[in-house]
Amino acid sequence: MKTPVGRNFSSDHVAPACEAIMSAVNQANEGSVTSYGGDDLTAQLQSVACDVFEKQVTVFPVASGTAANALALSQIVPAFGAIYCYEAAHIVTDEAGAPGFFTGGAQLVGFAASDGKIRPEQLTQAVLYAEDLGVHHVKPGAVTLTQATEWGTVYGLQEIAAISAVAKRHHLPMHMDGARFANALVSLGCTPAQATWKCGVDVLSLGATKNGALGAEAVIFFDPALALDFERRRKRAGHLVSKMRFVSAQLVAYLSNGLWLDNARHANAMAAALAQGIATVCGARLLQPVEANELFVALPESTVSSLEMQGFNFYRWPLNLTQSGVTIRLVTSYATPRADVDEFIAAAAALTPPR
Amino acid sequence: MKTPVGRNFSSDHVAPACEAIMSAVNQANEGSVTSYGGDDLTAQLQSVACDVFEKQVTVFPVASGTAANALALSQIVPAFGAIYCYEAAHIVTDEAGAPGFFTGGAQLVGFAASDGKIRPEQLTQAVLYAEDLGVHHVKPGAVTLTQATEWGTVYGLQEIAAISAVAKRHHLPMHMDGARFANALVSLGCTPAQATWKCGVDVLSLGATKNGALGAEAVIFFDPALALDFERRRKRAGHLVSKMRFVSAQLVAYLSNGLWLDNARHANAMAAALAQGIATVCGARLLQPVEANELFVALPESTVSSLEMQGFNFYRWPLNLTQSGVTIRLVTSYATPRADVDEFIAAAAALTPPR
Amino acid sequence: MKTPVGRNFSSDHVAPACEAIMSAVNQANEGSVTSYGGDDLTAQLQSVACDVFEKQVTVFPVASGTAANALALSQIVPAFGAIYCYEAAHIVTDEAGAPGFFTGGAQLVGFAASDGKIRPEQLTQAVLYAEDLGVHHVKPGAVTLTQATEWGTVYGLQEIAAISAVAKRHHLPMHMDGARFANALVSLGCTPAQATWKCGVDVLSLGATKNGALGAEAVIFFDPALALDFERRRKRAGHLVSKMRFVSAQLVAYLSNGLWLDNARHANAMAAALAQGIATVCGARLLQPVEANELFVALPESTVSSLEMQGFNFYRWPLNLTQSGVTIRLVTSYATPRADVDEFIAAAAALTPPR
Amino acid sequence: MKTPVGRNFSSDHVAPACEAIMSAVNQANEGSVTSYGGDDLTAQLQSVACDVFEKQVTVFPVASGTAANALALSQIVPAFGAIYCYEAAHIVTDEAGAPGFFTGGAQLVGFAASDGKIRPEQLTQAVLYAEDLGVHHVKPGAVTLTQATEWGTVYGLQEIAAISAVAKRHHLPMHMDGARFANALVSLGCTPAQATWKCGVDVLSLGATKNGALGAEAVIFFDPALALDFERRRKRAGHLVSKMRFVSAQLVAYLSNGLWLDNARHANAMAAALAQGIATVCGARLLQPVEANELFVALPESTVSSLEMQGFNFYRWPLNLTQSGVTIRLVTSYATPRADVDEFIAAAAALTPPR
Repeated sequence: MKTPVGRNFSSDHVAPACEAIMSAVNQANEGSVTSYGGDDLTAQLQSVACDVFEKQVTVFPVASGTAANALALSQIVPAFGAIYCYEAAHIVTDEAGAPGFFTGGAQLVGFAASDGKIRPEQLTQAVLYAEDLGVHHVKPGAVTLTQATEWGTVYGLQEIAAISAVAKRHHLPMHMDGARFANALVSLGCTPAQATWKCGVDVLSLGATKNGALGAEAVIFFDPALALDFERRRKRAGHLVSKMRFVSAQLVAYLSNGLWLDNARHANAMAAALAQGIATVCGARLLQPVEANELFVALPESTVSSLEMQGFNFYRWPLNLTQSGVTIRLVTSYATPRADVDEFIAAAAALTPPR
Repeated sequence: MKTPVGRNFSSDHVAPACEAIMSAVNQANEGSVTSYGGDDLTAQLQSVACDVFEKQVTVFPVASGTAANALALSQIVPAFGAIYCYEAAHIVTDEAGAPGFFTGGAQLVGFAASDGKIRPEQLTQAVLYAEDLGVHHVKPGAVTLTQATEWGTVYGLQEIAAISAVAKRHHLPMHMDGARFANALVSLGCTPAQATWKCGVDVLSLGATKNGALGAEAVIFFDPALALDFERRRKRAGHLVSKMRFVSAQLVAYLSNGLWLDNARHANAMAAALAQGIATVCGARLLQPVEANELFVALPESTVSSLEMQGFNFYRWPLNLTQSGVTIRLVTSYATPRADVDEFIAAAAALTPPR
Repeated sequence: MKTPVGRNFSSDHVAPACEAIMSAVNQANEGSVTSYGGDDLTAQLQSVACDVFEKQVTVFPVASGTAANALALSQIVPAFGAIYCYEAAHIVTDEAGAPGFFTGGAQLVGFAASDGKIRPEQLTQAVLYAEDLGVHHVKPGAVTLTQATEWGTVYGLQEIAAISAVAKRHHLPMHMDGARFANALVSLGCTPAQATWKCGVDVLSLGATKNGALGAEAVIFFDPALALDFERRRKRAGHLVSKMRFVSAQLVAYLSNGLWLDNARHANAMAAALAQGIATVCGARLLQPVEANELFVALPESTVSSLEMQGFNFYRWPLNLTQSGVTIRLVTSYATPRADVDEFIAAAAALTPPR
Repeated sequence: MKTPVGRNFSSDHVAPACEAIMSAVNQANEGSVTSYGGDDLTAQLQSVACDVFEKQVTVFPVASGTAANALALSQIVPAFGAIYCYEAAHIVTDEAGAPGFFTGGAQLVGFAASDGKIRPEQLTQAVLYAEDLGVHHVKPGAVTLTQATEWGTVYGLQEIAAISAVAKRHHLPMHMDGARFANALVSLGCTPAQATWKCGVDVLSLGATKNGALGAEAVIFFDPALALDFERRRKRAGHLVSKMRFVSAQLVAYLSNGLWLDNARHANAMAAALAQGIATVCGARLLQPVEANELFVALPESTVSSLEMQGFNFYRWPLNLTQSGVTIRLVTSYATPRADVDEFIAAAAALTPPR
């Protein structure tokens, strides 16, 4: 179902790959190279990532965000462990049980959070509860945060550090699901290092597919010791691809010359423009702060239907945050044209009764 | 840490085995018999269970309630499935991740329930949500109820039937964690058949250990077709014991001559007596209806400490239901002497300030 | 470690992607399309595969051959099952335990086979043994054949049919690991249908990466009923990629206009030329019949070292088939230049002492 | 199917429990005690085991030998690991895939061994092969020996030490499946310490059920550090039983006052008597050295049928070791009466044609 380039706010992975990344893939297609990551581009990726994160890191390209998350968690959580997370985190609702599969049965323990951000007190309480139940309960295993969150909000550095302080006290590694990490980074205006290991993140799932790649995600360990045998986990999950140059090429291009930030900056700007337009022009209610590239908006059913009929693509969100009307999600990407944003605002405004 | 027989309300499995069951074990200890369940007693168990449940059922003895629950669930839920349950069900909080292990990663999806009983609307909503998310979400797999519940309450037959109606509509098998099934049965005053397959239960974890056995639990399928290859699951989990006659002997005795009901009736009566005494004499607050053999009571910290120092055994419950004071759990068993109950009430009363 | 295009016989995935497939990927990079396989190219792939296999099939693109094999097996083998295979099959030696992981613990039961091809009698014997041991043994689950085999040989259609007859008699589904299926097809000179479902194959792992793709493999079910919920398995393994158009584009191009056969034909021809040259010019011993694109050759250590020093790439095979000397493996691909073949033969001949 | 006490050589677990152990169970049945192993008897078991093995060990009672083996292996082998063993070891043929289940997919790598005893060279070769294949292969994980073996032979201390030397060189822990450990011990005439940790064993599955218990097995770690979180694995597998006193009581009695050795000594003596009688009187061929309590004998089909019809119980072994005739297995136990042995010999002799 090819849809018009424009008017598609259903997700950031409906977009094609950006030129720079496509070009890198084409350039990688020359000559015989060692397979399974023994190629120059994969070595270069390793080096680029160390530069970008200002630290000796270990990078493992994989095929999807689900794989990145589940593999990362399986590395740090025992099969009899608990994974502490937001109760409607992507790993809980949208990965078909991947964390349970990859870890061999670890349990997701979710915390309520109206803005998608868990709080340090919730972690403290859960760990105390687990300690009280002892061997009968799953063992506290790891904490995972989504950045930017499932609700388009962004954890502040202090917020992450506060959670991390609790985690460290209980020897729990911290994972970050960074499917939209670049969008959060641009929103925070800090360095990649500040947004991760400097505030306590041990492992990052770094997304690129939603932000301009064809298909490339990576697991990044900030302490190489944590990555021991990780390559074996990746292999047995079928995520060690033979012609890895084509994945590494995407990630090298992504992290080079600020491409990832430029792409994310555009996406965020389009989201901000949408948010402002929707709020001010249409008077619609934004259900969450718009801090990255996702908007959750309350609209009357009639407005939503009409927008759909006009060819705008977006999701009616299954977790409805509003009593009257519909919660829709709008996502912008590096490829969202300004015109689409303006058209959407205009269309929504036209459907809005005068106040 | 052998404690005095009396004064121990910490759980129903601190008690020894009852005479009738111990005697059955001793009688089983004679002669060579075929191992792995090929013995007469195991055959007899099968027959006794069919009589008791008024149906052709299939019974599989196992070593623990955790094994019974996890094996039963693994039989009916795919590895990529969701198990719908109460959010603080025993399988969630006290089985160290067994359901995830046995199913190969299925996800526990818990519903809030102040009395431990989930509601049909919660199930409907969860299934709709899952259908909305499609392949990205865990597939609706099964429903499990604990009977009696973790809060000492008991599902009414209508309540079970209402949940079952939703489950059947969505082709979800129903499991019942009956670690305290006999206590619920006595409480309901109905037949085993009415309490299970007649209101839609497909598989039952039948507990005996808490109610007088040395160590014997069973998984009972009400539709033999559902049990296909279950014996292989039991075997690979290490729960096909070689000298099965000793487990079967316990279960035969348990289900014969109303022993299970007599034992449970006593336990429930002691709980009722405790409840009445605590409420009327001490004026303490019962935090849940006392419908089986467990009580949850709100007491001031000073009272609790003092009772502990006097040698009464019970748990300070980790899920505190009261803002001021402590939630304690008291459990009675077939072996609880009336004197213990009276002593507890007297001691608590003595610690209660005059109103 | 970029090596010269030529002289690399280490594997068929050291080659780049072929022009037609690279071009298809570039063409796919346009406009917004529905993600997760809701795009036109994925629909087209489905249709092309049905045409190619002359049957209603179901196709699932995945990221690697390991994923294809392990996912396919997990769909047809229970966690307590046996997977019958060649004892040194790729799934046994080179997938880091993926079958055990994906199936939740199924057991690989390997048969000896000097040419990599298992025999129907071995399957019969193994199933009888399993039946004798009953519940104590893993349940017969499935049979898997590698085509072309790990030793570069090719199962004849009669050979497959004979194994399939035993499998069907015992209700065992048949899987084919077709990482080099196109090479086998060209070797057999038959239709894809004849090489698969017409001789009893139920599921095929179809490789494209080794034969000209960037990175694209597929699981193909010849009976759509067998594929029930397979998409959930793929998702939870992280193999449902969001921008699937880029994988589907490769597979569509691969299966269209005979590209896969042309590529394989060239690879096979180069292997045949190498084989003939090595045997006749150098007098070296071919350790297996050369029926696809792999050669296993016995050479003296001095010859092997010298070839390595001259820049020829190949593997010293860990399963040494010769008492005196070294077993090397040579692999040709769609991209192997005739000049490389000639140079290798000349170099090897120059190192051969006159007879 | 209750069979006469005598004449049953089908296995050592067809016997009832011995008096001393039954008595211990009865004595344990008094008073309230802390559940889940917090009782005195479990503490005593810990202490008795340390005495018996002359070392600080950690003991975990479980319900079956399959559980003991699979839990022990899951503790020491990663999910992506290889378990090196005899190719027809009990864990391979008779545990329904338990090792794969408990480890989350680890792979059994079996070595040929006509007498059931693997050799150090086989281990060396397998590890080198694994290292050659690197990340593509399962990681060398652990070695497991069965003592006494599946063929009724016994590893000598030097043989174990030689395997252990290779294992230690490659950092592989050593597990011993001691389902019939007491029989081996009596056969070796050495101390428990000499037979285990002094020759390199790290973890022992200690069987008691086959040698006089009702149902009691234990996992014993010779280095407590190796046992970290093992109790959580046991719990989530459903093998932490609530009324553990009844299992611990059996094991305490078993290891006290030499009961285990006395029981095993009788079983071995009966096996030796059978062996001598069969060999000398009947001229039948013993297919393996009789070093513990199992015999494998080659007999003509007519003799075997006739013995069966006379009411002797034994197995026709599925792995037939003889070209002409049948391989039968005879097992003796602590409870085998001398009269049974004599009757069997007499019956077999009567069926033997004069030479």
